[in-house]
Amino acid sequence: MQEQVAVEKTPLVPENGEDFDLIVIGAGPAGMAASVGAGRARLKTLVIDKALPGGQATTSYRVYNYLGFPGGILGSDLAVQMEEHMNMHNIYYTCEAVDDLVNVGPQEKAVKTALGHIYKSKAIIIAVGLEPKMINSTFERQFLGRGISYYAQCDGESYRDKDVAVIGGGNCACYAAEYLSEFVNRLYLVHGSDDIKAVKNLREKVFSNPKIDILWNTEMVDVFGLDHLEKIKLLNHSTQQHTWLDVKAAFVYVGRKPPEDILSLELDVDEDGYIVTDEYMRTNIPGIYAAGDIRVKQIRQIVTAVSDGMIAAVNVERDIFR
Amino acid sequence: MQEQVAVEKTPLVPENGEDFDLIVIGAGPAGMAASVGAGRARLKTLVIDKALPGGQATTSYRVYNYLGFPGGILGSDLAVQMEEHMNMHNIYYTCEAVDDLVNVGPQEKAVKTALGHIYKSKAIIIAVGLEPKMINSTFERQFLGRGISYYAQCDGESYRDKDVAVIGGGNCACYAAEYLSEFVNRLYLVHGSDDIKAVKNLREKVFSNPKIDILWNTEMVDVFGLDHLEKIKLLNHSTQQHTWLDVKAAFVYVGRKPPEDILSLELDVDEDGYIVTDEYMRTNIPGIYAAGDIRVKQIRQIVTAVSDGMIAAVNVERDIFR
Repeated sequence: MQEQVAVEKTPLVPENGEDFDLIVIGAGPAGMAASVGAGRARLKTLVIDKALPGGQATTSYRVYNYLGFPGGILGSDLAVQMEEHMNMHNIYYTCEAVDDLVNVGPQEKAVKTALGHIYKSKAIIIAVGLEPKMINSTFERQFLGRGISYYAQCDGESYRDKDVAVIGGGNCACYAAEYLSEFVNRLYLVHGSDDIKAVKNLREKVFSNPKIDILWNTEMVDVFGLDHLEKIKLLNHSTQQHTWLDVKAAFVYVGRKPPEDILSLELDVDEDGYIVTDEYMRTNIPGIYAAGDIRVKQIRQIVTAVSDGMIAAVNVERDIFR
Repeated sequence: MQEQVAVEKTPLVPENGEDFDLIVIGAGPAGMAASVGAGRARLKTLVIDKALPGGQATTSYRVYNYLGFPGGILGSDLAVQMEEHMNMHNIYYTCEAVDDLVNVGPQEKAVKTALGHIYKSKAIIIAVGLEPKMINSTFERQFLGRGISYYAQCDGESYRDKDVAVIGGGNCACYAAEYLSEFVNRLYLVHGSDDIKAVKNLREKVFSNPKIDILWNTEMVDVFGLDHLEKIKLLNHSTQQHTWLDVKAAFVYVGRKPPEDILSLELDVDEDGYIVTDEYMRTNIPGIYAAGDIRVKQIRQIVTAVSDGMIAAVNVERDIFR
């Protein structure tokens, strides 16, 4: 139903030291929604992301719960349409990692990037999203890109007709398993508990999929490979037995967490590092707002992130520009 | 970019007295999102609306702020796509007015309709949206459908090449004015204050539109016509002068309000009749949730309604079916 849309309008390029009304950090659904809201209010808006626009939406296979796309839409296609939407509004965009935020005063903020650039603004919306949790940073870092992956949609194709594992048992793990099962040879879903915590229709699909073997109460405790991953070591918690499983890849979906290194600001965060906001998306620091998965909230979906982003933009405009 | 999609799947038809897991009252964006969320969780769900699905989305001309539709999408097209999305999930649907809700117990609810039907469920989500405010119910009721309208998108075409008025000065009034100006002869925007309260780019469009005359500080105080509206009486608050203006239609956009007659339930509402919920969309009555414009909230947009609906459905499932 949706056609892949060529992105016709391109974003504006900021200059080092340039002043903006608003800087949005993160170009996932929340950040893009915020920039559309700000663009409609004619705020001069800069979006900064260390990657191209799309955020976690890009890494979703098919998005079924964003109302208005009946048969679902590929995450990558939705991201493109959102990006095009953002670009309709004369947004400035720069692909840089943010090193620090400086809170000079209530309406005076600065963002320093890893490239040494400084951008100034009256307000900031933090919409950086979450990053994948690791099980064991030592061997995961070692085999990253060589058999360990956090994004089935990006790396899955390399393992066509191979045996692979998905580690985890939530919605994301199940989506990844379902997606990969379409072209891999055999898929092992390695799950630490004895119950799948995914929405019912997804659970049913995973249970009835003949290509998927679920290994219950099982943890990945080590990996082995010469140049590339060859096998993973499993511990079964019911039997306390260790076994080795031959797989060419392990896709790790054991949750997501706030990035650790975003800020030296004294933002109120909860014990897990999520940013505390009120319902207007205001943080404890005047002029700094947060939207999307990075904030303390109950339901993290694309549509709740988009809603956050719009609300944040409206309140930036009301609080600061009226 | 979006094609109009034929609705292929049709909803199921409920029987009088039938039991459901969840009844959703209202089939606007919030209600449809809730039913998609409930469908994904395999809840047996009935949606009741006194009209066809779409809610206020149907009456919007072009929706520019629902992220993912870069050039905007006709409200009616978006409503069709949302309806099709809902129908993917084996939802029951009935087009009836709700007369009353009965709170038998924490997981025992009943809905009585104007057709005398009773439907039972464990939970209810109220997503009835808002209805247009009237300025003066006497003459507005008298000329309703004969020159007085609350929906430019539905009734506007009848006034091609005629002179019409839009009453109001907010976002909805401005959208209606912009839409109507494309085909009417002359448009008067009659506004009680001296400032347009719409997003900046919309404001700019209205100001620069040669077909739109703005009458500031002016109120519609009476109307005249034999069979059909012929003129409206205006009071200018700056000069205290009354004048008659020849127009064939007056489109009234002076705000929206909660429906007055929905419920005999003892729901917590604010002074204006909006339903109070927590961030999980729970009302003060266990098993009854509210989502979308009807609840106390800051920003009423399609995307915030969709977000509410999804959150309500997730919490119904978590609170009652786990």
